[in-house]
Amino acid sequence: MVAGLTVNAGEFNNMEQRLSLVSLGVADVVAASDFYERLGWRRSEKNSNEAITFFQLGGIILGLYGRQALAEDIGLKSGDGSGFGGLTLAHNARSKADVDALLSEAEAAGATIAKPAEEVFWGGYSGYFRDPDGHYWEVAWNPFFPIGADGAIALPG
Amino acid sequence: MVAGLTVNAGEFNNMEQRLSLVSLGVADVVAASDFYERLGWRRSEKNSNEAITFFQLGGIILGLYGRQALAEDIGLKSGDGSGFGGLTLAHNARSKADVDALLSEAEAAGATIAKPAEEVFWGGYSGYFRDPDGHYWEVAWNPFFPIGADGAIALPG
Repeated sequence: MVAGLTVNAGEFNNMEQRLSLVSLGVADVVAASDFYERLGWRRSEKNSNEAITFFQLGGIILGLYGRQALAEDIGLKSGDGSGFGGLTLAHNARSKADVDALLSEAEAAGATIAKPAEEVFWGGYSGYFRDPDGHYWEVAWNPFFPIGADGAIALPG
Repeated sequence: MVAGLTVNAGEFNNMEQRLSLVSLGVADVVAASDFYERLGWRRSEKNSNEAITFFQLGGIILGLYGRQALAEDIGLKSGDGSGFGGLTLAHNARSKADVDALLSEAEAAGATIAKPAEEVFWGGYSGYFRDPDGHYWEVAWNPFFPIGADGAIALPG
């Protein structure tokens, strides 16, 4: 025990206080990307394709992804009345083990596990929790998007 | 005209490529704040009260606000079937004039103005657009939350 620190039952301290990505579910990724480019923003050519587009926004990343694909990524059925707002937040962890630990801590803190973490097709490891108000958070380990010491995440290239 | 730059009709360049706030609509601000604190996050005591809570997340801010109050801030009627997902993104501008300019540019780029900018009760100037997929963006001037040269926004204190 470090002098001056107390650990209380039910208190969790592992989740760094930061956001990594905001993912917007969209009807058409190309059209949605064009809208944001018309505002003057520039997508990352290297990391974008017709199925997903990324924009670097300071220390976080905006992703545009098919709305149905985003729902399926969480494991939601189409039109299941879940109140899915078509948008997810993501907290990228620094290791696979951290993903599991953070999901467990979120559940213990009152969240619902929407999808346990699993290996995913893009080469990472990801799960989702739903906060007590229904907002979806992905907790992911993505070996391709580096996280700085300050928590900022960067698109490569 | 600056040499090497061309301005094309229909192209907009005024919106800095950054996000300022994510606001989550919640049933109970205190309970929702407690959930995020159980994850190990710390709210800004100075800037939070029972009606709104702020967490500094790197260069952006997370706000927790009553879901109905958030809908009303946009000007949405309760249960109007608008598909409001209970979450808004915000881009804070550096001046009131920029708020008006950015909303106009968003509209010209294909967004719908959900609420024209107006003076708001907390001392700022704010309006909302809805992107082509229905995601709500607030464009605000907030003289109390400084924006750095790099676009990072900071809670005072």
